[in-house]
Amino acid sequence: MKTPVGIDDIAVYIPRLYLELASEEQPEKHTEFSRARESDPAKYLHGIGIAKMSIPDTYQDSSVLAANAIFELIERNNLSPANIARIDIATETGVDESKPVAAYVHGMLEQKYGKGALKKTSGVEYKFACVSTADALESSLDWAWAGRANGRSSIVCSTDVAKYPLNTPGESTQGAGAVALLVREEPRLLSFDNVIGTYMEDEDDFWRPLFSTTAVVHGKHSEKCYLKAMEGAVDDWAEQAEAAKLIKAGPGESLVDHVGPMSFHVPYPKMAEKGFAYLLRHFWRGLPRWTEVTQKIGHEPKAASFRKREEFEKAESDYMHHFMETPQFQKEYLEKVADGLVHARESGNSYSASEKSCLSMLLETKAKRGVDLAGRRGGSGNYGSGSKAKVSSWVF
Amino acid sequence: MKTPVGIDDIAVYIPRLYLELASEEQPEKHTEFSRARESDPAKYLHGIGIAKMSIPDTYQDSSVLAANAIFELIERNNLSPANIARIDIATETGVDESKPVAAYVHGMLEQKYGKGALKKTSGVEYKFACVSTADALESSLDWAWAGRANGRSSIVCSTDVAKYPLNTPGESTQGAGAVALLVREEPRLLSFDNVIGTYMEDEDDFWRPLFSTTAVVHGKHSEKCYLKAMEGAVDDWAEQAEAAKLIKAGPGESLVDHVGPMSFHVPYPKMAEKGFAYLLRHFWRGLPRWTEVTQKIGHEPKAASFRKREEFEKAESDYMHHFMETPQFQKEYLEKVADGLVHARESGNSYSASEKSCLSMLLETKAKRGVDLAGRRGGSGNYGSGSKAKVSSWVF
Repeated sequence: MKTPVGIDDIAVYIPRLYLELASEEQPEKHTEFSRARESDPAKYLHGIGIAKMSIPDTYQDSSVLAANAIFELIERNNLSPANIARIDIATETGVDESKPVAAYVHGMLEQKYGKGALKKTSGVEYKFACVSTADALESSLDWAWAGRANGRSSIVCSTDVAKYPLNTPGESTQGAGAVALLVREEPRLLSFDNVIGTYMEDEDDFWRPLFSTTAVVHGKHSEKCYLKAMEGAVDDWAEQAEAAKLIKAGPGESLVDHVGPMSFHVPYPKMAEKGFAYLLRHFWRGLPRWTEVTQKIGHEPKAASFRKREEFEKAESDYMHHFMETPQFQKEYLEKVADGLVHARESGNSYSASEKSCLSMLLETKAKRGVDLAGRRGGSGNYGSGSKAKVSSWVF
Repeated sequence: MKTPVGIDDIAVYIPRLYLELASEEQPEKHTEFSRARESDPAKYLHGIGIAKMSIPDTYQDSSVLAANAIFELIERNNLSPANIARIDIATETGVDESKPVAAYVHGMLEQKYGKGALKKTSGVEYKFACVSTADALESSLDWAWAGRANGRSSIVCSTDVAKYPLNTPGESTQGAGAVALLVREEPRLLSFDNVIGTYMEDEDDFWRPLFSTTAVVHGKHSEKCYLKAMEGAVDDWAEQAEAAKLIKAGPGESLVDHVGPMSFHVPYPKMAEKGFAYLLRHFWRGLPRWTEVTQKIGHEPKAASFRKREEFEKAESDYMHHFMETPQFQKEYLEKVADGLVHARESGNSYSASEKSCLSMLLETKAKRGVDLAGRRGGSGNYGSGSKAKVSSWVF
């Protein structure tokens, strides 16, 4: 059997400045933001699940956020720079069109560790909206699985500043942050399974045109792309996981019964919650428990039964809402997903950094609660507009 | 022993439009360009080694160039889309700040192969000036070395449009092109050694500021960074290659005696030639043949012997010039490097695509000449401003 490879430690850096969208204690109470936008503050909290958005300070760009997260990771683990084989960066808010964030980070770290300390440490920038983290991590896993680590570590850092034009719906899903992963053999936190699911399709749900500091997003369309791609990637993962005999659903069981906790890409918490609900619907169909659900909330709407696309979408949206209120969904959601979403609720959207920040929050919360996860299999779902989803699983 | 992994085929795409800087037949004869710049056309040909620069047509950006190269590779090898596990892109002229060239390429290829044909094919964009090709390729090698290919292929495509401001020295080192590599197990062309040398340092020799369509380059400084990084990466490679017992220099021998042909990053052919000369000086010092060389052209200038930095640099430049005229250098250069540089001479600078275009030209020319390379070990040196060099070796 191969040496296990995975995440040994995680460091998260969030700028200290933030903007409050809604008060957790008094959701109806106006905030500076809701007043300026003449909006209902509760809609941020209940509609999308956001209370605060982190804001980078004037001197902080994505490379500064990354350097902070990586520096903390190195210091906390007392790593020798010569023993770090690679420091790769995933971002969609690079700071130069040619020079990667990785090179700026190199320079900042060498201010601390001395010129030349990282000369044999390779770094590069990965770009694919919010999903590049999965690609960067996969490269480090392959590198170690291929037997090239030789006791050295790799650091994979996702860093982003999410910014939309003023007075647009995207405005309330901004944020900033970086998360650095320490990848090595025999990791303390979790080891990855050797199968990764992929779904990719050329889409224009979200992008940032050359030379624009703010992104363009078609919110409703992007939500559909997220769900479709995530389902496709989970199916691809499930097919491989079953073939590799990692996992097997018994009679009346669903594959997802054997996976949890789970972390997702979190543009806003409600999106991840919907993504999880969509997956449960996908995997529960045909099971006894699905009969119980449909007895309560009726059957899923079918596009063919509606004359207009909008009518179907309304029915589908309502159905999702009803499903998310069932005790069956709530139990799974609270057990497997909810704990990880507190990060985004308190700091907003950090694009490529959001899924691993979610994972970090999930692990920390479970640990604080004393939940014993040893030997349990968890899953991660990354989505990047444009579009691609990647799904991976790991064992504590 | 591991299954060999490497390059099975290479497809190069160069735009059909070009601008002539100098005539190969009559180097002194004015061209439209040299007349407009009131310059000596021969300096392009002899000074930097460029005769023509390729120019993308109005509808061609880096994603179009990439799609053309990849399409040719797929067609020529009759690949089934479902059997292509990944199509990764290396570029420093992306077409969106968030959405990767890989997604646009996906869309273009699915116009040919049908919607959904590549849904399980992953793609991402790598960014690090001209060196990202080495990183993207390394990820595919690791993926296959880790045993994850299962008979499937990976395509790594480098694509770029090199553009500098009008009336600047960089203007004569423009160009455009894409090169697609078919990476698989048991490759027909060459298999990579399991060691890769790295040298990385935060530098500002070349970059493209956010929102600028043209790059900024400090030519002289960048040349020094290229040489320094390449030497560092070769040393790192050599240390690993010796430790892995891939290669051993006998008495009076140099490690580079055992490696060749070689491909380099070619911003302009003269740079690659200088890079090779610099490496030979590095590896030949102390050998009997170096005594022969110094008997003819004197000893290398030492910085400490000069009062002014400029004087040393002038002496160093002259010395390099003299060394490059020695029969010892010329023999090695013509045998191992020169054939690969014809590509850049005839089409200019294609940034991330230049080294593998050089490799392709090298292999094709050697094959046409009937040179038997079976079993020989070759080397590749990539450099990306900002800065990083990567050095790899492979066996035919």
